[in-house]
Amino acid sequence: MTPEITTKDIVKKYTDIRRRSEEICAPLEIEDYVVQPIVDVSPPKWHLGHTTWFFETFILAPHFPEYEIFDPKYNFVFNSYYETIGARVIRTDRGNLSRPSVSDIYQYRKYVDEQMKAFLQSRFMTETIEPLLELGLNHEQQHQELLMTDIKYILGHNPLFPAYTKGKQTVKPYVEDVHMLRFSEGLYEIGFHGEGFCFDNELGRHKVYLTGFEIASQLVTNGEYLAFMEAGGYNDFRYWHAEGWDWVKQSHAESPLYWHFIDGKWMNYTLNGLQEVDPNGILCHINFYEASAFASWKGMRLPTEAEWEVASDHFNWGDRWEWTNSAYLPYPHFKKEAGAVGEYNGKFMVNQMVLRGASEATPPGHSRNTYRNFFQTNLKWQFTGIRLAQ
Amino acid sequence: MTPEITTKDIVKKYTDIRRRSEEICAPLEIEDYVVQPIVDVSPPKWHLGHTTWFFETFILAPHFPEYEIFDPKYNFVFNSYYETIGARVIRTDRGNLSRPSVSDIYQYRKYVDEQMKAFLQSRFMTETIEPLLELGLNHEQQHQELLMTDIKYILGHNPLFPAYTKGKQTVKPYVEDVHMLRFSEGLYEIGFHGEGFCFDNELGRHKVYLTGFEIASQLVTNGEYLAFMEAGGYNDFRYWHAEGWDWVKQSHAESPLYWHFIDGKWMNYTLNGLQEVDPNGILCHINFYEASAFASWKGMRLPTEAEWEVASDHFNWGDRWEWTNSAYLPYPHFKKEAGAVGEYNGKFMVNQMVLRGASEATPPGHSRNTYRNFFQTNLKWQFTGIRLAQ
Amino acid sequence: MTPEITTKDIVKKYTDIRRRSEEICAPLEIEDYVVQPIVDVSPPKWHLGHTTWFFETFILAPHFPEYEIFDPKYNFVFNSYYETIGARVIRTDRGNLSRPSVSDIYQYRKYVDEQMKAFLQSRFMTETIEPLLELGLNHEQQHQELLMTDIKYILGHNPLFPAYTKGKQTVKPYVEDVHMLRFSEGLYEIGFHGEGFCFDNELGRHKVYLTGFEIASQLVTNGEYLAFMEAGGYNDFRYWHAEGWDWVKQSHAESPLYWHFIDGKWMNYTLNGLQEVDPNGILCHINFYEASAFASWKGMRLPTEAEWEVASDHFNWGDRWEWTNSAYLPYPHFKKEAGAVGEYNGKFMVNQMVLRGASEATPPGHSRNTYRNFFQTNLKWQFTGIRLAQ
Amino acid sequence: MTPEITTKDIVKKYTDIRRRSEEICAPLEIEDYVVQPIVDVSPPKWHLGHTTWFFETFILAPHFPEYEIFDPKYNFVFNSYYETIGARVIRTDRGNLSRPSVSDIYQYRKYVDEQMKAFLQSRFMTETIEPLLELGLNHEQQHQELLMTDIKYILGHNPLFPAYTKGKQTVKPYVEDVHMLRFSEGLYEIGFHGEGFCFDNELGRHKVYLTGFEIASQLVTNGEYLAFMEAGGYNDFRYWHAEGWDWVKQSHAESPLYWHFIDGKWMNYTLNGLQEVDPNGILCHINFYEASAFASWKGMRLPTEAEWEVASDHFNWGDRWEWTNSAYLPYPHFKKEAGAVGEYNGKFMVNQMVLRGASEATPPGHSRNTYRNFFQTNLKWQFTGIRLAQ
Repeated sequence: MTPEITTKDIVKKYTDIRRRSEEICAPLEIEDYVVQPIVDVSPPKWHLGHTTWFFETFILAPHFPEYEIFDPKYNFVFNSYYETIGARVIRTDRGNLSRPSVSDIYQYRKYVDEQMKAFLQSRFMTETIEPLLELGLNHEQQHQELLMTDIKYILGHNPLFPAYTKGKQTVKPYVEDVHMLRFSEGLYEIGFHGEGFCFDNELGRHKVYLTGFEIASQLVTNGEYLAFMEAGGYNDFRYWHAEGWDWVKQSHAESPLYWHFIDGKWMNYTLNGLQEVDPNGILCHINFYEASAFASWKGMRLPTEAEWEVASDHFNWGDRWEWTNSAYLPYPHFKKEAGAVGEYNGKFMVNQMVLRGASEATPPGHSRNTYRNFFQTNLKWQFTGIRLAQ
Repeated sequence: MTPEITTKDIVKKYTDIRRRSEEICAPLEIEDYVVQPIVDVSPPKWHLGHTTWFFETFILAPHFPEYEIFDPKYNFVFNSYYETIGARVIRTDRGNLSRPSVSDIYQYRKYVDEQMKAFLQSRFMTETIEPLLELGLNHEQQHQELLMTDIKYILGHNPLFPAYTKGKQTVKPYVEDVHMLRFSEGLYEIGFHGEGFCFDNELGRHKVYLTGFEIASQLVTNGEYLAFMEAGGYNDFRYWHAEGWDWVKQSHAESPLYWHFIDGKWMNYTLNGLQEVDPNGILCHINFYEASAFASWKGMRLPTEAEWEVASDHFNWGDRWEWTNSAYLPYPHFKKEAGAVGEYNGKFMVNQMVLRGASEATPPGHSRNTYRNFFQTNLKWQFTGIRLAQ
Repeated sequence: MTPEITTKDIVKKYTDIRRRSEEICAPLEIEDYVVQPIVDVSPPKWHLGHTTWFFETFILAPHFPEYEIFDPKYNFVFNSYYETIGARVIRTDRGNLSRPSVSDIYQYRKYVDEQMKAFLQSRFMTETIEPLLELGLNHEQQHQELLMTDIKYILGHNPLFPAYTKGKQTVKPYVEDVHMLRFSEGLYEIGFHGEGFCFDNELGRHKVYLTGFEIASQLVTNGEYLAFMEAGGYNDFRYWHAEGWDWVKQSHAESPLYWHFIDGKWMNYTLNGLQEVDPNGILCHINFYEASAFASWKGMRLPTEAEWEVASDHFNWGDRWEWTNSAYLPYPHFKKEAGAVGEYNGKFMVNQMVLRGASEATPPGHSRNTYRNFFQTNLKWQFTGIRLAQ
Repeated sequence: MTPEITTKDIVKKYTDIRRRSEEICAPLEIEDYVVQPIVDVSPPKWHLGHTTWFFETFILAPHFPEYEIFDPKYNFVFNSYYETIGARVIRTDRGNLSRPSVSDIYQYRKYVDEQMKAFLQSRFMTETIEPLLELGLNHEQQHQELLMTDIKYILGHNPLFPAYTKGKQTVKPYVEDVHMLRFSEGLYEIGFHGEGFCFDNELGRHKVYLTGFEIASQLVTNGEYLAFMEAGGYNDFRYWHAEGWDWVKQSHAESPLYWHFIDGKWMNYTLNGLQEVDPNGILCHINFYEASAFASWKGMRLPTEAEWEVASDHFNWGDRWEWTNSAYLPYPHFKKEAGAVGEYNGKFMVNQMVLRGASEATPPGHSRNTYRNFFQTNLKWQFTGIRLAQ
């Protein structure tokens, strides 16, 4: 935050971001806030409480002397992965908790927001708090994306297939001119630079030596992936990692998530309800194994995260989180910060793959071309896509 | 149903029983209707829908020509174990379904109830329908008991321990004069007789030859069970079935369900919230393994269902479902009826134990001394208790 | 044991029974002694060690002052379910133990047998030991049957399908004259009576009142069961217990154990190797769910154990263990003995069904018409069959 | 293979390597060849058969016209992960197969070895076969290491703790002069170069840009790790990856594999039997999570594989496989070969970490400083160790 940003700006930014979470939930029935169909999906009410708990726990409680905890039991309910802050609720149990009610949680948000606004305008809001505030707001934005992916999962796995939005979804016009962008061998730099917020995992801008590579100007479409499916891609082990092939056989996977073969047609559950698969639409909801197998079938590969970052100014990105073939590992000189904030990223740096870009569910302004998203290789419920390289 | 019962009586009976289900749910928040913490517990909204679906599917749809199905997708959602009626929702998935909403389900109930009232007063309501109607009403009452047990489980496994009822629960005064009632060897008869409704598993009144036995005049108290716990009952394999002992070790069981050792005291989650265990209260929420181990520790045993039925006029029953040492098996000449109704009881006659009596959660008038309740041997969430025999 | 039985007789009986266990294993390769393909099947070398451990632990160690334990670590390895005697090896781990070697175990047997012979001829062999000796010998015979069933499982689940016996197995000529034997309503007696050994679960001869019943003069054949399979028996839930139907779907069961559909024919792994299914052969290797479903398809049922015992003098039995529809429960006045011997039977009296008769794998003279065998309802690897009743 | 290598040399090399596998097994009892205590450990007899099957399937069958398959069923039994060559035996089932016997397998080896020697001296042994032969021999050497690790696991998990070697194991004298070696920032090259055999995953020597780093001159000792344990390392989540912490809690890990706390002392199962932990001995049998947590507790980190390779000429390596913090991913321009040989490495390039060096169980001459070994992050049964970096 640069000096010229005023307190008024800060309060507005806080208010805008916090309001957006509630706007995302506006179309929901109360019942939709509660359920947890799989362990990776959290109930929307939990997201609303957890992001609020973050501000309460890391800013208000330690830094605002007059603050009173809303309900001491909420720490137990809304703590997620922060081992430092006490026993956490096992993630699988979140979907069993009918209380606190949705109404209780909105009151909790209201209370914390009022206190935060008072705090931000108080003498306790010092420069040392700013990074924590930025972290809290970026954290809220990450959960806004998860709210979208989790709501889609909850509604999309209900046999009634209820729509989230009533209007017609505008399908992005797809530009047909796909081609390979070439980059020559040499030393490049990656990692965050410049001003503004970034996560700790992006820090440590450093040189990387890349051999020459090519990367696609556009993402893979539904039609291209359908060709892979129809060519028997899910039945031919040669395209798959051994672990991916085991996953195919155990999960009986045969298509992207939300695709259903009904009456001879591939249908796709979208936020507008069930629709026929659009071959010109951008492919979505595939996991790393599938992305990798598709690339292998094409005789190509996924880009590394360094290649992606180096090339990213030369193509449009932001429609899908793009799987890379880079494992999520620390950059040189990465250091975990002390305390709970240090648990944010570093402890996940094993057995996950990096995704780059952003998706239609990412809050505006939240991502950048040095942003390192990461997920396990079997997960499909994020808005993920494929960009080929060779 | 005897001839003097008028249509008005029938409509009243139907209305009263149906209303009771909704009264049971009155204290709930909408969120409480939705969750399913374990596979054996169904969400309250599912119970409300399923019992309604029963009347729609077995009475209105086949027998009331003008009836229109409320929503054809509901068959998929609210069918339970009736394989005859098409694919059923896997029980574990019930807790993932946020739709239909609670409000939708109350509308469904209202619609079906109005149609049922019209039907009951129509010329289509013939004598042949009566057994189906009785079955539907008894089915609703069974789910009323499950509503109580499942609501208790949902609230009692929430870290906020919300109370279901606000008032003070009156603890039943416990009569201290416990003694053993003696019955001599000889031929007895068991099974349903007389008029009125019974389930098919009670039919076929038949002779049984019993050796002499004694049975306790009262149920086991919390204090007596506490003595077993404090004597190391959960740590001594000699009192347990081999299967029960495996269960103890795997589940780390050490007390009845809902008991928590907090700050040096045994606390008990009740429908009024968390309270200290009352040693004079009647023991509740133990499974067959525990009931059997307790009896073994006492140097006694559980009664058989025949012994229980023969003796039942000589003691008060109705506070707890009482575990017997009888496996749930068909009476002589038991016959499954054809069609879906035939699936009601017979197919569960393996690897379950019989419970006799009734509980504080049983609807008034629903049980009788020939009633055969049954559960798996590891389950604790019903209102179960122990009566000793030797 | 009656007084006229001489020491010489006792030593001969001991020697004969012990030798038979080793004869059963004579055709095995050393490797066959070691493996445990499923948790219910124990490695043959374990059976040989465990039965020896029984004599060492319950007779020699406590009653023969000069006896020295062969190897104190063997208690840990060969103890099975006797919780009283110290920590037991988890059954699933038996197949991981390459030591003690087969040769070590034969030395252990030799050592214990020599000591036992010395003991039996010593002044320490008193009348009070006799029941323990009888129990040990009957225990050895039970494990002889398990040796046969387990060896069949080990060889029959090897892709090379090695034969156990080299010669041609003589198929029992099947008498076609099957008919129903009728028994009238009335009081009968069941339970052990007379002299000689019996297990504690047979004791307590007592009256039972039976309604009239019919029971088949012969066991069900392969051909009859094939008709059930071909009529879609494994695809029609109506014939199955709910739990049985779940088992069918999860295990993808479609035939008795050891049946393989190869090149258009049903083949059957027998102790002589793979052979075509003989439709006149007596059906074998079905579990309780299958026995019960077959009976239901026939419009009949399985007999109760009381019916079976009452009728058993009127038909030939001994080819298969015959599933009854009786749960394994204590007879009236059943008492567990104190100490480890008391763990023999009583603790298994839950969630198992009784089988009556004997099988081609039962040692001669081991069974009798009051013998109560018992297994869980999903198990198929015993030599089990079906006798219908109605 | 360079031209001056004679046929005689080739036959000798083949014979020596093949003989070594059998020498490793010489101390075993037949029973030790058969068991599979966990899914990652294969029975020794399977290793002996599988490596033989490799030569039969990839060299003799396709390239030696007069060759006759030893037993066509062996393909089913000894195929491992080569999906191209037909249905494989599920790995978990290997421990259930008592046949083919150990003696059969030694005959199989003898037969194939004689045929291979004839082939190597025949006109069919052309230059195009050489890479396949090299691959087969390196494959055999990899299984020699697995034989050692699996034999240790089998004997070390037997309650009798039998020793593999009878003599006293000489503990390597540990040089106390541990210090950090410094390397400056800059461009380096890694990947295989020069002549001789290497695996496909080492190919593609390429430039990497490294920031300055320090790496330890020696491996971590038992004493250092004991200090971590005694400081509560296994109880403090701050040192662990989130996934590693879950592993600690689920597995109840508290020490390296084979360490047992007995009578107040840490004992260590070695190939010589159970011995007290030597604080000066080199730490062994820890997984990636533990290696990483230990480094974190030390305020340091694991080296990347590029750092390790660049520094490897400056320290002694070969005692332990050294965990790196590099995920196992393809080098630039890595290409899978067509056919079964192409399945050798590429398909494992996900969710595994690279280990560099070699261990006391690695055959002499098998490894090199570009060798890329890899295992899943939870596995401990390899001879693994820790070298710190910062």
